Amino acid sequence: MAAERSSEARVCADRNAVAIDQIVERYRHVRGVTEALCAPLATEDYVVQSMPDVSPTKWHLAHTTWFFETFVLLPSAPTYRSFHPQFGYLFNSYYNAVGSRHCRARRGLLTRPTVDEVFDYRRHVDRALIKLLEAGALGGDELLATITLGVHHEQQHQELILTDIKHVFSCNPLRPSYTESVGQADSPGAPLAWVAFPERLGWLGHDGAGFAYDNETPRHRVFGEAFALASRPVTNGEFLRFIDAGGYSRADLWLSDGWNAVQGQQWCAPLYWERREGRWWAMTLSGMRELDMHEPVCHVSFYEADAYARWAGTRLPTEAEWETAATTVDVAGHFADSGRLHPAPAVASPTSKLTQVFGDVWEWTKSAYAAYPGYHQPAGAFGEYNGKFMCNQLVLRGGSCVTPPDHIRATYRNFFPPDARWQFSGIRLARDM
Amino acid sequence: MAAERSSEARVCADRNAVAIDQIVERYRHVRGVTEALCAPLATEDYVVQSMPDVSPTKWHLAHTTWFFETFVLLPSAPTYRSFHPQFGYLFNSYYNAVGSRHCRARRGLLTRPTVDEVFDYRRHVDRALIKLLEAGALGGDELLATITLGVHHEQQHQELILTDIKHVFSCNPLRPSYTESVGQADSPGAPLAWVAFPERLGWLGHDGAGFAYDNETPRHRVFGEAFALASRPVTNGEFLRFIDAGGYSRADLWLSDGWNAVQGQQWCAPLYWERREGRWWAMTLSGMRELDMHEPVCHVSFYEADAYARWAGTRLPTEAEWETAATTVDVAGHFADSGRLHPAPAVASPTSKLTQVFGDVWEWTKSAYAAYPGYHQPAGAFGEYNGKFMCNQLVLRGGSCVTPPDHIRATYRNFFPPDARWQFSGIRLARDM
Amino acid sequence: MAAERSSEARVCADRNAVAIDQIVERYRHVRGVTEALCAPLATEDYVVQSMPDVSPTKWHLAHTTWFFETFVLLPSAPTYRSFHPQFGYLFNSYYNAVGSRHCRARRGLLTRPTVDEVFDYRRHVDRALIKLLEAGALGGDELLATITLGVHHEQQHQELILTDIKHVFSCNPLRPSYTESVGQADSPGAPLAWVAFPERLGWLGHDGAGFAYDNETPRHRVFGEAFALASRPVTNGEFLRFIDAGGYSRADLWLSDGWNAVQGQQWCAPLYWERREGRWWAMTLSGMRELDMHEPVCHVSFYEADAYARWAGTRLPTEAEWETAATTVDVAGHFADSGRLHPAPAVASPTSKLTQVFGDVWEWTKSAYAAYPGYHQPAGAFGEYNGKFMCNQLVLRGGSCVTPPDHIRATYRNFFPPDARWQFSGIRLARDM
Amino acid sequence: MAAERSSEARVCADRNAVAIDQIVERYRHVRGVTEALCAPLATEDYVVQSMPDVSPTKWHLAHTTWFFETFVLLPSAPTYRSFHPQFGYLFNSYYNAVGSRHCRARRGLLTRPTVDEVFDYRRHVDRALIKLLEAGALGGDELLATITLGVHHEQQHQELILTDIKHVFSCNPLRPSYTESVGQADSPGAPLAWVAFPERLGWLGHDGAGFAYDNETPRHRVFGEAFALASRPVTNGEFLRFIDAGGYSRADLWLSDGWNAVQGQQWCAPLYWERREGRWWAMTLSGMRELDMHEPVCHVSFYEADAYARWAGTRLPTEAEWETAATTVDVAGHFADSGRLHPAPAVASPTSKLTQVFGDVWEWTKSAYAAYPGYHQPAGAFGEYNGKFMCNQLVLRGGSCVTPPDHIRATYRNFFPPDARWQFSGIRLARDM
Repeated sequence: MAAERSSEARVCADRNAVAIDQIVERYRHVRGVTEALCAPLATEDYVVQSMPDVSPTKWHLAHTTWFFETFVLLPSAPTYRSFHPQFGYLFNSYYNAVGSRHCRARRGLLTRPTVDEVFDYRRHVDRALIKLLEAGALGGDELLATITLGVHHEQQHQELILTDIKHVFSCNPLRPSYTESVGQADSPGAPLAWVAFPERLGWLGHDGAGFAYDNETPRHRVFGEAFALASRPVTNGEFLRFIDAGGYSRADLWLSDGWNAVQGQQWCAPLYWERREGRWWAMTLSGMRELDMHEPVCHVSFYEADAYARWAGTRLPTEAEWETAATTVDVAGHFADSGRLHPAPAVASPTSKLTQVFGDVWEWTKSAYAAYPGYHQPAGAFGEYNGKFMCNQLVLRGGSCVTPPDHIRATYRNFFPPDARWQFSGIRLARDM
Repeated sequence: MAAERSSEARVCADRNAVAIDQIVERYRHVRGVTEALCAPLATEDYVVQSMPDVSPTKWHLAHTTWFFETFVLLPSAPTYRSFHPQFGYLFNSYYNAVGSRHCRARRGLLTRPTVDEVFDYRRHVDRALIKLLEAGALGGDELLATITLGVHHEQQHQELILTDIKHVFSCNPLRPSYTESVGQADSPGAPLAWVAFPERLGWLGHDGAGFAYDNETPRHRVFGEAFALASRPVTNGEFLRFIDAGGYSRADLWLSDGWNAVQGQQWCAPLYWERREGRWWAMTLSGMRELDMHEPVCHVSFYEADAYARWAGTRLPTEAEWETAATTVDVAGHFADSGRLHPAPAVASPTSKLTQVFGDVWEWTKSAYAAYPGYHQPAGAFGEYNGKFMCNQLVLRGGSCVTPPDHIRATYRNFFPPDARWQFSGIRLARDM
Repeated sequence: MAAERSSEARVCADRNAVAIDQIVERYRHVRGVTEALCAPLATEDYVVQSMPDVSPTKWHLAHTTWFFETFVLLPSAPTYRSFHPQFGYLFNSYYNAVGSRHCRARRGLLTRPTVDEVFDYRRHVDRALIKLLEAGALGGDELLATITLGVHHEQQHQELILTDIKHVFSCNPLRPSYTESVGQADSPGAPLAWVAFPERLGWLGHDGAGFAYDNETPRHRVFGEAFALASRPVTNGEFLRFIDAGGYSRADLWLSDGWNAVQGQQWCAPLYWERREGRWWAMTLSGMRELDMHEPVCHVSFYEADAYARWAGTRLPTEAEWETAATTVDVAGHFADSGRLHPAPAVASPTSKLTQVFGDVWEWTKSAYAAYPGYHQPAGAFGEYNGKFMCNQLVLRGGSCVTPPDHIRATYRNFFPPDARWQFSGIRLARDM
Repeated sequence: MAAERSSEARVCADRNAVAIDQIVERYRHVRGVTEALCAPLATEDYVVQSMPDVSPTKWHLAHTTWFFETFVLLPSAPTYRSFHPQFGYLFNSYYNAVGSRHCRARRGLLTRPTVDEVFDYRRHVDRALIKLLEAGALGGDELLATITLGVHHEQQHQELILTDIKHVFSCNPLRPSYTESVGQADSPGAPLAWVAFPERLGWLGHDGAGFAYDNETPRHRVFGEAFALASRPVTNGEFLRFIDAGGYSRADLWLSDGWNAVQGQQWCAPLYWERREGRWWAMTLSGMRELDMHEPVCHVSFYEADAYARWAGTRLPTEAEWETAATTVDVAGHFADSGRLHPAPAVASPTSKLTQVFGDVWEWTKSAYAAYPGYHQPAGAFGEYNGKFMCNQLVLRGGSCVTPPDHIRATYRNFFPPDARWQFSGIRLARDM
C-alpha cells in the first residue's frame, strides 16, 4: 500500500521560469528510461503481482501514463480524447478524490490491456502531452508544476519496477535473472568508523531551491544533542554475526511488534537470503549469488534494523540527525544508472568520513513518518499523496542502487511500514556522544 | 483443489488390442485440440490465476505434458531426456507419490517458463512419445493404458482451460471475450415435463467396455424406489422466479452450510450474473450478454441447486437415479466442439422425453461423492487421483457445453465441493412418485 | 455448529396413549439428571466457551429450558409469563424460524444471567410445565410429542455438557478434574475378531415403535453385499502402532481434505493425547492419565478413522452395514449413568461376537449424512433441526460413555463434520467378504 | 496487547528515604482499592475475556499479585513458598525474560483457579510481603523501588479492570450495570476557547522528584514553535456534528490506515454509541444512557481524533505541546475515586483557561510513542516493560475518569495503537499560531 505514495505530492515548484524545451527534453528522457528498464522482460513478466505491495510492470507503465492523462491532458488539453474510457478506473492508484478504482490486490488479475496496448497508451499520451507543451498553451506555473511532479512520480515507479520484478522473480523456483550484469564485489570493504556531530538548534526540511515533495516542507528548526554516525552501512558479514549470535531467537533484542513478526513470519535472515549446504546465498536481479560479506546488508525490515542496532549496543539515527549529516556530503553514489542494481561494498578512505550516504541502500531511521510542524496538506487529489500516510510508517533516507540518480536529495523522505522488506533497505548506525 | 482430479485415475483399459496407429492418431488429435483452444488467447492471458481453484492456461498446457513425461517417457523411454530438471516440481498437480511440488495457490506467480517455452516443452514430449509409440517398444497393456489415461486427462484439462479463462476474464473490469461466436439463443425453449422410472434393483457403474475412470467401478447393484426426472434442466427464467420470490433471503430454503455461504459470500444470483439498470446480464465466453430466459441456468453451486429444488417442492436426483435415466438416451448434446461454449435452450419435443441429459450443463446430484462398494484404490501415484477426494464433495453428471464430445458417458462421475460455482453446473430436478 | 442439532427433530411420536403422570415423571427425572451433572462444577466453570463448537454449561442449562418455554409454554399455556424478555434471543440455538439470536461464537461472553439466575429460570419453567401437564390441559398428541422431543433434546445436551466441559478443562494448563471416579481399566482387553453378515435387500431406519428423530425415517429398503464387522472398536494400543508406523506423516493414507487437516492443524495424535517424557498421557474427565492401551481409541476425527482403516487394510462400515449388525445385539453398554465417563476396554468373550456396539465410543461410519429416500422435512421450526445439516457431515452410530442410557437405539443417527474431534468418537472396522 | 505495559517500568525511585510504615500503608491501601473495585461483580463477571486486548478481572487480580511474588518475594524472602507452582506461567503478562507464559488471547478460557482461590492468592502474598517489609529485611533501595513500581503497576490495572469490565458488559445484549452511580450531567458545558503558548526551547520529561516510569526520562530539551491549545476536550455534541456532516464517509478526512479501519470495521460512531429510534445512546458503567451532548466524547481511536481535528481545521497537539501546557495547571480533575466513572461536562470559567487537562478522558496526541533522546532501556525483565512497545503506538496524556487520582502527572505517557477504542480516550485540539 505504501509503495508509490511518496512520489505523489504537491510539488514545491521551482518558481524560476523553466524553458519549455527543457521540460520536453526532461519528459522524453524520463519516459524513455522507464521503457528501457523493461527491455529485459518477457511479455509474461509484465503481468504478475506476487504480493499486494507489488504491482505488475504493466500496471506501473500504465499508471504513470494515467497520471499525465488525468492531471494534465484531461483538464488542460481541450481536444484530448481519452485513450480508453475505463483506464481511469484501472490505473488510479489510491486517489479517492479522483473516483473509484480497481482494487490494489487484484492488479495481477488483469491480462488485458495487453503489454502492447499499454505501450500504445504511453505513445498516445506522450504525443498529446508533447504537443500540448510545444503549443505553448500551458496556462501557467501550476501545470508545469504538475508535469514536473509527474516526472518525479515516474522516476519513483522506475525504482518500483526494479524492486517489484525482483520480488516476482524471487517467487519463481527457477529464480530468473533480470540482468546479467550484477557483478561480483570489486572492493574488500572498509572498516567502520564514527563521525561526530555537535549539539545544535538546526534546520530540517527543504529550503525551496529545486523540486521537493510537500512532505519535505516546511523547513523548520529542531534541537538535537551531539551524536555520531557510522561511516558506512552495516555489511552482510556484520549482520551474519548477529544471526550467528542467535539474534533472531532472542526476544530481548526486539520491539514487541518486531518479535511478533519474527515469530509469525518465521524470519531467520533478511529477505532473499537462502542457506544452501552450509553457505548463504541471496537472490539478486541476476538470480541467486553467494553472499558477499562486504556488501551492505539489504532487504531488512525496520524491526531487523532496530534489533541489530540494539544488539550492537547502538541505535538507529533520527531523521534529523541523518539529514544534518547528509548535508555535509555530496549527493553521489551507486544509483540505478550504474546498471549494477545491487549494493556495493564500501571503499576504504584514508580519513574517516561518511560514505555511501546516498545510493546503495535506503537507510532506516528511528523516526516515525509524521508531518513537519506547520505542514499543510494540499487541497484536492495531490493532498492525498503524502499526508494520508503519516501513521504507522518509518522514515528511510538516502536512496538506493535502484533509485534514479537525479531523484534523490538530502531532504528526501521515503517511508514504509516497519515490517516491509522488499525494498532495498539497509542499516546505518548512530550513537549518543 | 478439485479441478483436475477426476481425470487422473487408473484406467480400466480396454483389453482388446488397440492398433498403435490409432493410438498415435488419437494422441495427436487430442493434443492438437488443446492447442487450438489457445488460439484466441494473448500471451498475457496464459499467466494469470484468478483464484486458487483456477490454473493459468500455461500451467494446463505444461501439466498435461508433464503427465506423459512423468508416467510414460521417464519410466519407459530409456534415451529420453527431461526437457527441464525443475518442471517435474513446477507442473505436478497433487501427486504426493511423485514428490514435492509447487504450491497450487502460487501457480499464477510464475512468469517463466514463458508461453513459447511451454509450447517447446509440448513439442519435445510429443516427438518423444510418438517416436516411442512408433518404435513399437511399448512393453504391454499397462503403458498403453497410461497413455489412454493421459489422453482423457488432457481432455479434462481442455474443459478446465475454458472454465478457467472464463473466470479470469470475468475478474477484469473490461470483461474481455474469448470468442465472438457465442450466439443468441436459437430456440424458444420447451415446457418442463416429468419422465417416470419404476422401482428397481438395478446396476450402477461401468461395465468394462471402453475407457472409464476407477471411480466408476466396480459395477454393483443398487435398490431404488420409483422416481421421476425432469425432461430438461431448470432455465434462467425459472431460476429468476426463485430470486424474485426472495430465494436468497429465506433461510428455510437452504442447507445450514449453504445459508452460511449465502451470507458469508453475499450471494444473490448465480456466478457471473450482473444486474444493470434493471435487467440481468451474464458473463459468457463472448463477454457480457443479456440473460436468455430459456437457457439452462448455469454456474450455480450445489447449495443453490438444492435450495431451488426445495423451493420448487422437488429435490435433486441421486446419482443412481440419474444414471438409470441416462442409460435410456444417447450420449449426444451440445459439447465443446460446437464452438458455442454456452448452454443452449431446450428444444421442444412432441413427446415428453429426456433432453439435454448430456452436454449444456453439468447436473448436480444429491449424492455425496464416495467409493462404490468394493472399490479399491489403485497402488502408486494413480491411486491418488480419485480416491483421495471422496469426502466433502457432491457428484455431478452429464458433461457440459465445454466438455469434449468423446469424453463423457452415462457412468462418468464428476465431483466438486458444494460451494463451487465456476464450473458450468446446472440443475435437473427429480421427485418421488 | 453441529453439536446440538440432531436432537431437535420432529418426534415420530408414539401413538399409543401415554399417561400424563409418566410424562411428568420422565420430565422430572431428565431435568434432574441434567442438574446433577452440574454438581461438580464451580460457578466459573459454567461460563466459558473454549471454541465455537463448545457451549458454556450455563448456556446448555438455559437453552434446554428455553426449548420448553418456546415450544410448549408460550404457545399452550395462556397465563404463562416469560421469565425474561431477552432470553428468547440469548438462548435460541439456530432456529431461524423462531427469530434472530445471539451469535453462537459469542456465547462465552455472557457473564449474565448468572448461574443462579439460570437455575431460577429452570425452576420457573419446570413449575409452569408441570402445572400445565397436571392440569390436563394439553390439547392433544402434538404437544405431548413436543414435550417428548424436548426431553430427548435435553438428554442430548447432557452429553454435550460432559463433552464440552472436558474440552474447557483441557484448555487449562492446570488440567482440572470433573470427577475423581474415572477408574483405571478393569480388563486386559480382547482380541479382534470378524463377524460376518450376508448379502441382503434389507430395511434401514426406524419402524415407528417408540421415539425416533425425523432423520431416522422413513424406513426403507437398501441392498448390500456381504460384509464383516470387527468384534470391538480399535484400541489405543492399535492406534499407537499406526502412529509409530508414521501414520500421521504418510500422505497416501489420507483423504485429501484429511491430509490438509493433518498439516494445517498439525495433528500427530488423537485430541487430548500428550507425550510426556516418552510416555503417552491423555486428558480425561478426571484430568491427565497415562494411556491405557486396551481402551478404545477416542477423540479421533473421521479423517483419522478413515486413515487408520486404510492403513489396516480395511475400511469403515456404511451406516446400513452398521445398523444391520446392531439390530442383532441388545442396546446395552457403558453409558453416562455408569459415572465412569470414559471408554472401557473390551471384555473377551468365548465366542466371537459383537461387543461394545452401544456405548463407550461413537463409531464413525463412511456414510455421508443425508436424507433417507422419501424423507420430508417437517414444516416450521422443527423442520430446521435435522434436515438442514445434511451436507458435509458423516454419520456416527452407537452412542458413547457420556450418552444417557435410554437415549440411544440401533437406528439413531449422530452426525459431525469430518474434522470434529472433541466428541467421544472412535473407530470400528469393516471389510468386504 | 498494549493494555498493561506502560505500568511496568523500571522505577526512577525517589532517592529520599521512605519510611517503611508509609510503604506498608500505601501497599495496603492500593491493594484494598483493587478489591473494593470488584465488590459490584458477580463471580461470573471475573472470568470473561471479550477480546484479546481485554483481560478477565480474575486475571488482573492474580497478575498484580504475581508481580509482587515474582519480583519481590521469590528473590528476596528466603522462606517464601510459591502459592502455586503454575501461577508463574498463568499470570505472567509478557515478560519474556521471566519465562514462558499462557497465551494472552486465551486468558478467558481459564475457569480455574476460581475467584476464591485468586483472593486466597492475594492474601497469601499480602501477608508475606507485609511480613517482609515489617521485618525490615529489605536490602536496599532497589527492593523498595520494585515495591513502589508494583504499587503503580497495580493502580494501572485498577484502571484496566474498569475499562475491561465495561467492554465485557457491552458485549452482553442485557447491557448490565457495574454501578448505579453514573449520574446525569450536572453542568451545561462550556464554550471552547484557545489558550496560547509561545515559541520555546523547553524541557520535556520527568525531573526526578517522585516516581516516574522509565519512558518519562531522560528530561531533555525540545524546540517548539508557538501554538494554541483548546480550553477543554471536544464534546459529544461537537463530535455528532462531525458525524452528521458525513465525517465517517469522507475519505479525505482520514489517514489512509484510518480509512481502512473505518471501512474494515464499519465504524460510524465512537465505540459504545448506539442509535435507537433516532436518538443516540451510549454504554456506560451504569448501562445504556442517552448521550449527553456536553460530556467529552470518549472511546474514540486516534484515527477518529485525527479525522475530527482535520475536519475542524485544526490538529492534535504534540506531546511536547501538551506537556508544556499541562505544567501550567494543577493535577486535579475527575478521577476514579469520584465513583462517577464517566467523563463530566466542562464547567464554564470566567477566564479562558485550560480545564479538564487531567482526568475525564485520555487525550490523544499526534506524537508516535518513541524513546526520548538518551533513553536507555533497563536491563532484565523491567527493561521489557516500556521500551519494547515503542513502535506503532501513539501517546495519550492526562488520565481519565477511571484513572486512580494519585497515579497521574504532567509527564505521564500512556500509549495505544491508533485503532484502540476501548480505553477512555478523547480529543483535545491544538492549532498553530
